[in-house]
Amino acid sequence: MRTVRLDLAYRGTGFRGFAANEGVRTVAGDLASALEQITGEAPALVVAGRTDAGVHATAQVVSFRIGGEGLRRITDGTPQDTGLDRLASSLNRRVNPDIAITAAALADDDFDARRSATARAYEYRARNAAHPDPRFADLEWHVRDRLDLDLMNAAARHFVGEHDFRSFCRRPKDRPGASLVRTVTRAQWHADGALLLFDIEANAFCHQMVRAVVGHCVAVGRGDRSAKNVPAVLAARDRHAAAPIAPPHGLTLVAVRYTDA
Amino acid sequence: MRTVRLDLAYRGTGFRGFAANEGVRTVAGDLASALEQITGEAPALVVAGRTDAGVHATAQVVSFRIGGEGLRRITDGTPQDTGLDRLASSLNRRVNPDIAITAAALADDDFDARRSATARAYEYRARNAAHPDPRFADLEWHVRDRLDLDLMNAAARHFVGEHDFRSFCRRPKDRPGASLVRTVTRAQWHADGALLLFDIEANAFCHQMVRAVVGHCVAVGRGDRSAKNVPAVLAARDRHAAAPIAPPHGLTLVAVRYTDA
Repeated sequence: MRTVRLDLAYRGTGFRGFAANEGVRTVAGDLASALEQITGEAPALVVAGRTDAGVHATAQVVSFRIGGEGLRRITDGTPQDTGLDRLASSLNRRVNPDIAITAAALADDDFDARRSATARAYEYRARNAAHPDPRFADLEWHVRDRLDLDLMNAAARHFVGEHDFRSFCRRPKDRPGASLVRTVTRAQWHADGALLLFDIEANAFCHQMVRAVVGHCVAVGRGDRSAKNVPAVLAARDRHAAAPIAPPHGLTLVAVRYTDA
Repeated sequence: MRTVRLDLAYRGTGFRGFAANEGVRTVAGDLASALEQITGEAPALVVAGRTDAGVHATAQVVSFRIGGEGLRRITDGTPQDTGLDRLASSLNRRVNPDIAITAAALADDDFDARRSATARAYEYRARNAAHPDPRFADLEWHVRDRLDLDLMNAAARHFVGEHDFRSFCRRPKDRPGASLVRTVTRAQWHADGALLLFDIEANAFCHQMVRAVVGHCVAVGRGDRSAKNVPAVLAARDRHAAAPIAPPHGLTLVAVRYTDA
């Protein structure tokens, strides 16, 4: 058995999220189906960042274990090499253009796309203008009310550091007692014309955390909430203490970091 | 009778171009249908820049003439005002989100979206990277071969000025003898990471001119054509002298200028 690492990008618009889900189109579903055509097997896929419906990725990472005939089919002719360029091309020919496999390689045996990741980064795109740009309607949250970028950055700074993000997360149903303490290493807005971009990095994110943080920053930028109140909202450890969450379609997973990759 | 000016943006992906065309979805078709629901009439639409299938716009301009009951319905309650904000909102409620009407107003009687325009500007987006970004698959031409931006700008500079663009245009079928002399006032590439943006402005463009110019610049950037040969290609007045045209989906109409607006 060997461990394979895939790097991929996708436009989330046409998917009901990453995770396989019977009867609906998902990234994992399309990927598993292409992998099965190539390897004759359907290995369990481990993903670095499970994205929700409508959320995009430019640098998602997936790992799986494979042996025997399936492994022979993807490594045949490249026994020494750890790059599996032929697998990447074969997958790209079998998936729709809303998924792009950017790399495929053999990884260390103990590599696990989720557990081995030491940091993730997301980007959120909001358009602050009277009208949306229809070209980017599936990629940007259109906010009509004038936003104050300085206030949004004043709010964002309070999220940096180790915090219990209970006020900014959806409680995991399957593990209600799980820790929601996360360490944010970067949280910053910048403007590119009418497009406001939020860049956030953390060791890990709990469910809907970026969208909740963005929703709160936008409420601050609009004047509905105060930036200096963010620490109190964090301390409340109550989801109702935070502003409404931002819609999914503005969000993109842009990086996953590993210590040894 | 009064003249109405509409400003609009659209994502061209779902349309078979701007111009109304029986049996296929077009921007003019959707717009005319929404206008008819509101005014009870189907006025002839004049457009500043007829865009092809897959081409986008952030600042398209349309004009039409309307009188009687139809005019009353859109101006009712705003007799003095030249802004027709209510018409813009009504249209936006009736069109899909891939069209956004950004302004509606009464214009001078002799205003004609096409004839009154003194300049148009287009943007072309090309992604120069090993892999496409699936988020922007319908908005960017993905070019894998390494492009030299300086060479592309050396080529672009030759297009500035008054030239006969016969080598860079599709000959108009209905007016085979029409002049293809156009004056380009700006033609420049710049890079934003892997995204290469081309900005071109002219008094007017002939059919497929921007895509032909972009296709030629990219051939130069790739090393297939020489920048200093562009004047000879222009002088040839032969479409086969130029490199293949760029695909439509990277193109956006971004501005239309009027002397008095």
